[in-house]
Amino acid sequence: VITRRAFLGAAGAAAASAWARSSRAAVPAATDLTVDAQKLRSRLERLSTFGRPAGGAFADGVSRVAYSDADVQGREYVIGLMKAAGLEPRIDPAGNIFGRRGGTGGSLPPILFGSHIDSVPSGGNFDGDLGSLSALGVLETLAASGTVTRHPLEMVVWAHEEGVAFGRALACSRIVAGDIKPGDLDEVWNGMRRADAIRRIGGDPDRILEARRPKGSLHCYIELHIEQGGNLEKAGLQVGIVEGIVAIDKYDAIVTGFANHAGTTPMADRHDALLAAAQLAVAVHDVVTSEPGRQVGTVGHLEIAPNAPNVIPGSAKMSIELRDLSPEKLRRLGDAVRARARDIAASTRTTIELKPASLAPPASASSDVQDAIGRATEARRWSTMRLPSGAGHDAQMMAQIAPMGMIFVPSVGGVSHSPKELTHWDDCARGANVLLGTVLEMDRV
Amino acid sequence: VITRRAFLGAAGAAAASAWARSSRAAVPAATDLTVDAQKLRSRLERLSTFGRPAGGAFADGVSRVAYSDADVQGREYVIGLMKAAGLEPRIDPAGNIFGRRGGTGGSLPPILFGSHIDSVPSGGNFDGDLGSLSALGVLETLAASGTVTRHPLEMVVWAHEEGVAFGRALACSRIVAGDIKPGDLDEVWNGMRRADAIRRIGGDPDRILEARRPKGSLHCYIELHIEQGGNLEKAGLQVGIVEGIVAIDKYDAIVTGFANHAGTTPMADRHDALLAAAQLAVAVHDVVTSEPGRQVGTVGHLEIAPNAPNVIPGSAKMSIELRDLSPEKLRRLGDAVRARARDIAASTRTTIELKPASLAPPASASSDVQDAIGRATEARRWSTMRLPSGAGHDAQMMAQIAPMGMIFVPSVGGVSHSPKELTHWDDCARGANVLLGTVLEMDRV
Repeated sequence: VITRRAFLGAAGAAAASAWARSSRAAVPAATDLTVDAQKLRSRLERLSTFGRPAGGAFADGVSRVAYSDADVQGREYVIGLMKAAGLEPRIDPAGNIFGRRGGTGGSLPPILFGSHIDSVPSGGNFDGDLGSLSALGVLETLAASGTVTRHPLEMVVWAHEEGVAFGRALACSRIVAGDIKPGDLDEVWNGMRRADAIRRIGGDPDRILEARRPKGSLHCYIELHIEQGGNLEKAGLQVGIVEGIVAIDKYDAIVTGFANHAGTTPMADRHDALLAAAQLAVAVHDVVTSEPGRQVGTVGHLEIAPNAPNVIPGSAKMSIELRDLSPEKLRRLGDAVRARARDIAASTRTTIELKPASLAPPASASSDVQDAIGRATEARRWSTMRLPSGAGHDAQMMAQIAPMGMIFVPSVGGVSHSPKELTHWDDCARGANVLLGTVLEMDRV
Repeated sequence: VITRRAFLGAAGAAAASAWARSSRAAVPAATDLTVDAQKLRSRLERLSTFGRPAGGAFADGVSRVAYSDADVQGREYVIGLMKAAGLEPRIDPAGNIFGRRGGTGGSLPPILFGSHIDSVPSGGNFDGDLGSLSALGVLETLAASGTVTRHPLEMVVWAHEEGVAFGRALACSRIVAGDIKPGDLDEVWNGMRRADAIRRIGGDPDRILEARRPKGSLHCYIELHIEQGGNLEKAGLQVGIVEGIVAIDKYDAIVTGFANHAGTTPMADRHDALLAAAQLAVAVHDVVTSEPGRQVGTVGHLEIAPNAPNVIPGSAKMSIELRDLSPEKLRRLGDAVRARARDIAASTRTTIELKPASLAPPASASSDVQDAIGRATEARRWSTMRLPSGAGHDAQMMAQIAPMGMIFVPSVGGVSHSPKELTHWDDCARGANVLLGTVLEMDRV
């Protein structure tokens, strides 16, 4: 678990806390203020029209892939709302949209909070949108009540979070975290160079390095998001306090058998790559479910060749993805899958190569932010659970430069990345108010 | 098992046999004559150049798909050989090539024998070619020795056997067996109407019905072919006497789960279509190998959606193909697979629909022809085994109108439909001589 001390240093943390104690009375309690739930809902509904399928309704979801016309229009809509709220929106060189409200604490670092509004193709209306529009609602609520925090407050709408366009490794929050390499801007997707894509949404690729924000320059980063899983709904709880974002170990399994005639080749003489791949997919499931815990394992991609009904498959390629907060557990599960692959290769007389495709480290949520979320929900008497995020988020990048925390609200049926994605309006409003309360709690820390 | 009696009727069979006994001395014993092995080899090598990969050699196999330029050229080469042998090649309205040599037995029906020369893409040099060129070799050998049989002899080179162009259901031998429906000629493949394809190889689609040969109009049909499986090689035996061509039951399994986020969906909440499909593929293998026998079962085709590493597959479609000589066994295996599918659907919380895609009945080899092959090999003291054909052949269609038999020679490693397909030259020559002996044996029956 990462604490603020790790970011600010012992002296800085002590100074900030002393300041906090002396000025605690300046800011109202979280429960005194409430984000306008009706406004939040009507904005989510309006935002959903940018990228809505032709002739569709809210329930038909949205396709607002980053850098598309729908994305550009959705961003313009949000920028307009920010201006109307008296903010002066700033687009950083990476294309991320920021809106700032000053604090009373002199040079104290800002509290950053927000999410994204791009979507996967045929996605839902809550993933990203809720956190982005709630961040605006928080700033408006504070302004309306005349509340001024010690820390400057910044809302953000991150660009290209879903990674549909140039891949997740090129999400724009990553640039802010300092992860930008020469050549990244030359990636091409859909005939569009990444530099041009960034220009299209108002960014400035020539000054891309200026988008970076150094480690320690933020007081913390907070993101409200729908859970995208079914844990909260299943447990009948209202708010999730994210412990961290899981690590992901990805492998490509390459199975090599021997293609042969499906009619003339006796069962005992076969080297059936699909049979081996099928056994391996079953083994992945067995290994992952063989111990308690929240780890998940997925074979999502499988390709076989020659893929004809009357030919024994000669080769297969499949993805194996393992996720958990603990890299040690992932290593152990990976080793177990590897051992099973060896046995399967021997018994099917194929070869199976298990190539690590990528290993993403976990991102822990700061205990300070987790505790602040806990206090904000406790004040409202809302029920909570602590849980990991199985999905990646911009918060993962921010964890590299700031204490990070995430608030989850329930997803009906755990459905996400689908038009069927749904979070009840009450839960949306609850999430916005927890975000507001957490911002105020963190302002005091 | 089908006997000649079933085709000729009791009286016809008795008359033919009486004739046979009275004139047995007119035809030499099979062992007195030998097909020219060197000529057979050099012709197989020459034929392999039509459709050979650019810059390749014999070992690189052949792509001589029906109706392609390579097919047209290969057919011209064989027609040239037939003319040089004194035959007057006739192309029937379906595009099949016939060459006839008269007999002494008045109106006795002809003995038909041959195979095909079209190939699968990246196929081998023996599948079809061996039986076609051996048939020519048999006629040449008889002519050279001045042997005249009682029955007229006809060799045939069937068109479009592999079913690459318009599908196996439209093989040209099928037309001869009377299986031709209105509309069949309007099928389009690769931008080519089937009628035009048939015209391209010298057939006459306007007179297509004249290609039919009525049931009982042939004394028998004999086909020499490579085994395409590894049974003969494994047993160390020289000649296979085919008992029949297996029945094929094909199913499409449609698995419906629910696509969801691979990171946020707990293992217990998944409806993973790929996991269900994998379990079903393993179950097909288990069911098929759970009882003794030569039955085979193959999952050759599998498609999943959305097929992304980070999404739990929501649906899968797979082929299941079961082959055996016994339709009863196939039904039993199909029922067992269906029962397993029900269990798998329940445990993975998916639905699995098992739709019969096609049911091809078995084609039994006539006991008369099997026995004739047996006598022909016994005379040469070659070792034999009786076995089913797991692959489909033109003989399957001919079984509908005539007593049918097939001769197999060993395939190295059981490999077929591959450039690696190989039958040793000694085995090729052996096959041609068994064909010759069998023709002479059947002439006496």
